[in-house]
Amino acid sequence: MTDFITHCRAHLADIKTQGRYRRFTPLQREAATFPVYVMAQDGETRPVTVWSANDYLGMGVDPEVIAGARDALEHLGAGAGGTRNIGGTSPLHDALEAELASLHGKEAALLFTSGFVSNQATLNAILRSLPGFICFSDEKNHASMIAGIKNSPAKCLVFRHNDLAHLEDLLAAAPADAPKLIAFESVYSMDADIAPIGAICDLAEKYGALTYLDEVHAVGMYGPTGGGVSERDGVAHRLTIIEGTLAKAFGAHGGYVAADAVIIDFIRSTAPGFIFTTSLPPSVVGAALTSIRRIRHDDARRAALFANAERLKAKLDAAGLPRMPSVSHIVPLMIRDADLCREVSRLLLERHGHYATPINYPTVPRGTERLRLTPTPLHTEAMMDDLIAALTEIFAALGSKAA
Amino acid sequence: MTDFITHCRAHLADIKTQGRYRRFTPLQREAATFPVYVMAQDGETRPVTVWSANDYLGMGVDPEVIAGARDALEHLGAGAGGTRNIGGTSPLHDALEAELASLHGKEAALLFTSGFVSNQATLNAILRSLPGFICFSDEKNHASMIAGIKNSPAKCLVFRHNDLAHLEDLLAAAPADAPKLIAFESVYSMDADIAPIGAICDLAEKYGALTYLDEVHAVGMYGPTGGGVSERDGVAHRLTIIEGTLAKAFGAHGGYVAADAVIIDFIRSTAPGFIFTTSLPPSVVGAALTSIRRIRHDDARRAALFANAERLKAKLDAAGLPRMPSVSHIVPLMIRDADLCREVSRLLLERHGHYATPINYPTVPRGTERLRLTPTPLHTEAMMDDLIAALTEIFAALGSKAA
Repeated sequence: MTDFITHCRAHLADIKTQGRYRRFTPLQREAATFPVYVMAQDGETRPVTVWSANDYLGMGVDPEVIAGARDALEHLGAGAGGTRNIGGTSPLHDALEAELASLHGKEAALLFTSGFVSNQATLNAILRSLPGFICFSDEKNHASMIAGIKNSPAKCLVFRHNDLAHLEDLLAAAPADAPKLIAFESVYSMDADIAPIGAICDLAEKYGALTYLDEVHAVGMYGPTGGGVSERDGVAHRLTIIEGTLAKAFGAHGGYVAADAVIIDFIRSTAPGFIFTTSLPPSVVGAALTSIRRIRHDDARRAALFANAERLKAKLDAAGLPRMPSVSHIVPLMIRDADLCREVSRLLLERHGHYATPINYPTVPRGTERLRLTPTPLHTEAMMDDLIAALTEIFAALGSKAA
Repeated sequence: MTDFITHCRAHLADIKTQGRYRRFTPLQREAATFPVYVMAQDGETRPVTVWSANDYLGMGVDPEVIAGARDALEHLGAGAGGTRNIGGTSPLHDALEAELASLHGKEAALLFTSGFVSNQATLNAILRSLPGFICFSDEKNHASMIAGIKNSPAKCLVFRHNDLAHLEDLLAAAPADAPKLIAFESVYSMDADIAPIGAICDLAEKYGALTYLDEVHAVGMYGPTGGGVSERDGVAHRLTIIEGTLAKAFGAHGGYVAADAVIIDFIRSTAPGFIFTTSLPPSVVGAALTSIRRIRHDDARRAALFANAERLKAKLDAAGLPRMPSVSHIVPLMIRDADLCREVSRLLLERHGHYATPINYPTVPRGTERLRLTPTPLHTEAMMDDLIAALTEIFAALGSKAA
C-alpha cells in the first residue's frame, strides 16, 4: 500500500515537473450558444468561445438531434438496462447499426460504448484469431488502436507515418503466408493530415493483408454523404473494416465498426469489450440515428465546415502565427514547449475568453506541443478575428519563446 | 483475408454446434410500462415481461431520473463534445464525481465510459505502476477485471471463489516485499453470492495488499444509503479502491472508481482508457446524478427490491423449480445445458410472454447454464405467479431433461 501511494505521489510530481500535469477546465457547454460555453470563476460566470470541441459540425446541439435523443429518453428510459445480449438490444440499436452499415457501404455494423473500445476490442479480437498474425501499424495511430494491438499475441511492426515505401518494405520482408493486418487512420487528429488510403489498399491487396481504417475524425465530414475519407476517395469497398465514432461529428456518444457480415458476427460473438458491457443508452442511440440521417444529406453543413477551416487558416497565416500545414478541418498551432503551451492556453482563457486545449505528451511527442483548433460551422468570422487578435497579443508578449 | 474469413466462419459454426451462438432478442424497453417491454413479431407487437434487466431498481424509467437526463440534454446538448481534458469536463461531471466519492466515503472518484472500462483501465494502470506486482484474483471475477489484469505485466494468482483459506495460502507463499493487490467482487452476478469483504480486508492488512472491490451488482441496493455491500458491512474505509457502475441500479450508463485523492489523480493522469475517450454525455450524467441523490435516501425502494426477490425465491421453491441458493437480489435458475437453456428461454418468450436471458459459456462455465432472474420493485406478484405457471408447464413438458 505504502509503496504504491509513494509511487503515485512521485509519478504525479514528475509529470508536474515536466509541465504536463493536466487540470481539467470545467466548461459548461450550452446548447443554445455553442460554441460559446460558460465558465464559472470566482463566483461569477463568463462566456468562453471554445475552439477545441470534437463536435465538429455542432450536431450535438442541433435541435432535431436533441429532439431525437429526448424522444428515445422519454419512451425507452435513461439507461439501456442490460448488455446487448441481456435485454439491451432495442429496435433502435438495430436501426442505428443498419444505418451505419449503409453509410459505409458494408454488410453490417456493430456498436460499442466508445470509439476507444471499438478500436481496442475489434483489433484485439482479430489479431488473436489466428496464430502468427502480423499487424502493420502507423506510428501515429491513436492510443486505443495501440491498446488493442499491444495486448494481442500478434507481432506489431510500426511503419513511419503515412510512409508507403516503409510500409511496403515491412510487408515484403514478412513471411508471405502469415496473416497480416494494416491498421491506420484517415484523418490524423493531432497532425491534421490524411492517409493515402487507396495506395495502402493497393499494398494490402498485393501482400494479402486485411485493412483496418479508423475514420473517427472523418465520418460525417468527408465524402458526399459523410462516409469519411474512404467514401471521398471511392475506396470504402476495398477496406476490410472501417471504424468510426458517434461522439465527434455526429455529436452523440459511442463507437462502431462496419465490415462484411461474417466479420461483424465474429467480433460480436468473441470480443469481451463488446459482450460484457451495457448497451448504449436510448438517448444516445436516438441522437446518433437522427444526426446521421440528417448529415448524410446535409452537404451545406460540410461545406460550411471546410470554408470555416480555410478561413481560419488564412487568418492565422496573415497574422504570421505558426500554424501547422493541414489538409483537413483541423487547424493545429505549433508551440513546441509544454509549459509555454499551457501558458498560451491559460492567457487565452483568462484574459481573452477563448479556450483551446494545450496538447502535450503523451498525446503528441515531447517538443511538438501545440494548440489544436477545430472551427465548426457555428464559429463566426467575428469570433475568428477576436481569437487572432488575442493570439497575436499573447505571442507578442511571450516574445521569441513562442516562435 | 481468405484465411481470416475462413476462420470467422469456422468459429461461428463451432459455437453454433455448441449451442452457444447468441441471437439478440430485440425488445423495446418502455419507460411507461417497465418491466413490460414490447416485442415486434410477424408485423405485430406484443407485451413481454422482462426478468433479466440490470436496471435493478427501475430507476432508469423513473420520471425524476428521466427529467434529470432531459434537463441536461436540453441545456448542454446530446454529446459531451470532447475528452475530459479537451472541453469535456462540465460542472455536472465534477458534481457526479463528488457525489460518488461521498457515496463511498472516499476522497475522490473518477468517471469512465463504462464499468467494463473502469475495471480494465484502473486495474491495468495500478498493476503496471510497480515492478513485480502480484494480483490475487477471485476465479469468478468479471471479464472486465480479467481484461485489465491479464494485459498487465503483473503475475496473476487466481484464488478459489470466495475461499479465504486459499487466498491466504497464496498470499503467504508470495514474496513479502512484492506489491500485492486483491481483486474481487461483492455480489457475484451469475452465482448470486456475496464475498466476505471484511475477512478479505483482514488478509489484505496482514499481508500488506491493496484491495480492489467491484460493487457493480451492489451499488444503490446494499447498505443504508446504497453504498454497496462494503457500506452494509461497515468496511468501505478499509478498501483501497471501490469500483461501481451507473448502468445497473442507478439506471443510467458508465462506470467509476472511488479511492484516496492521490490514487484517483494517478489513474486520471495515466490510464489511456480514461484519457483518450469522449467524456460521458450530459444526459447520462444528469440521469445518474439525479438517481444517486434520490436512491441514497430511498430505503423503501431497496426494501421493496429485497422483498420481491425473497417472494420470487419462495414461489420458485414452492413450485419445486431448481433455483440456485442466493443471498442477494439475483435469482438464478439452474438448467445445466446450453441447448435446453435456450429452449426454456425461447418457450417462455414465444408461448408465455416472459423473457429471461439464457446465460451460457463463456459467461458461466459449461454445464452450469442457467436463467438469471432479477425481479425489480416494479415486478408485481401477478407477474411472478404467471412466470411460475409458465416455468412449471415448460419444465413438465421438457421432462427429466430439465431436472
